[in-house]
Amino acid sequence: MRIDIVTLFPAMFEGFVNSSIIKRAIENNYVEVNIVDLREYTTNKHKKVDDTPYGGGAGMVLTCQPVFDCVKALRKEDTKVLMMTPQGKTYKQQTAYEFAKMTHIIILCGHYEGFDERIRTLVDYEVSLGDYVLTGGETASMVIADSIIRLIDGVIEKESHENDSFSNGLLEYPQYTKPRVYEGLEVPEVLCNGNHKEIAIWKHKESLRKTYFKRPDLLENYSLSEQEAKWIEEFKNKE
Amino acid sequence: MRIDIVTLFPAMFEGFVNSSIIKRAIENNYVEVNIVDLREYTTNKHKKVDDTPYGGGAGMVLTCQPVFDCVKALRKEDTKVLMMTPQGKTYKQQTAYEFAKMTHIIILCGHYEGFDERIRTLVDYEVSLGDYVLTGGETASMVIADSIIRLIDGVIEKESHENDSFSNGLLEYPQYTKPRVYEGLEVPEVLCNGNHKEIAIWKHKESLRKTYFKRPDLLENYSLSEQEAKWIEEFKNKE
Repeated sequence: MRIDIVTLFPAMFEGFVNSSIIKRAIENNYVEVNIVDLREYTTNKHKKVDDTPYGGGAGMVLTCQPVFDCVKALRKEDTKVLMMTPQGKTYKQQTAYEFAKMTHIIILCGHYEGFDERIRTLVDYEVSLGDYVLTGGETASMVIADSIIRLIDGVIEKESHENDSFSNGLLEYPQYTKPRVYEGLEVPEVLCNGNHKEIAIWKHKESLRKTYFKRPDLLENYSLSEQEAKWIEEFKNKE
Repeated sequence: MRIDIVTLFPAMFEGFVNSSIIKRAIENNYVEVNIVDLREYTTNKHKKVDDTPYGGGAGMVLTCQPVFDCVKALRKEDTKVLMMTPQGKTYKQQTAYEFAKMTHIIILCGHYEGFDERIRTLVDYEVSLGDYVLTGGETASMVIADSIIRLIDGVIEKESHENDSFSNGLLEYPQYTKPRVYEGLEVPEVLCNGNHKEIAIWKHKESLRKTYFKRPDLLENYSLSEQEAKWIEEFKNKE
């Protein structure tokens, strides 16, 4: 898989591609990440890439020419073009799974006030991280790239994915590590007794409990087993 | 305002604090951003900060000691501690406004499988960017910091905020800049005719149109004016 991130601030990505899991995924050839400087594609002699908006208003707007030329230069047969914008479809884990199957993604980061509207004609997916506004798409594109890269086979342990929040429709159960007591706070007894069946049941129930209390909306599309329905009744009585 | 970001990967943030609007905000003393290396707070002689989970399972879990000691060292009277976690409350622009009023924020970035559950006792706000899973909280914390910093008075033009998507409950209207025609695609006539009243009406209507077609859910809590209700009828008839 190849991910091209098109940005006016390529230096912002140095830490991202040189740290931790992403660095290792690149070094082990699970993914190729290219940070593309949009300014290299402008034909303007002053390297300008933006201009004032028609009809007035604050801020500067990215012009068509560098973006059109950049996408033309990078696009291959199987390429999908993503644009980071608060107007896009809200990103979800299901979209991450879909994107992780692609062979070549170009991510366009906006900056300043926004894009010239005509740039949207180049775009396959408009993606929003959520309902909040950022100075640019750079940090958002790192989030998207990170969420995709970790799903590529081999990048992280398979078992890790199975316990991901959202992967089975529930939040992840609570995690504890040593020491068994820290500042008076104890690890639940069951996790220390070595009974794998009891532990599995506890994890399942606590996963459901977290979801019920923190994100009940996730349960709306979740089909409860008989046991899970009983647990929910129990949580309700404790509220 | 001061933002401390606690991470195991401080190098990931170099580009973030040295680019664009964030760099300028720091240089002009609108905000102080400290990238804090969690590893400096571990008392473990091998600088270990994580351990295997009780009850088994994949991955490593951040231990209590370095996080408790780090937060104790950084916390002041008015400090609020944020934790980046997919289990948190989904971040929204309204939360960004709330956070932008604080004087000192500590953002805890998770990594690996997660945090020891007891770390949550230190935390004032558990924040989730959205329903997707990341390798760590680093990219997420940049998103949060970016969304907060741009709202601090003086960081960007006031007028820019007024047109932000979500700030008035609607998506932003389409933006255009020169040239008037690009690869056959034209800028709407009204934006070029200089009639400010007509332009204001067009922007308002197009903002509503975008919201109606792309994010109708945003209109559920929006109270429509008479004119807006008429426009919605018009959009419905065109569907």
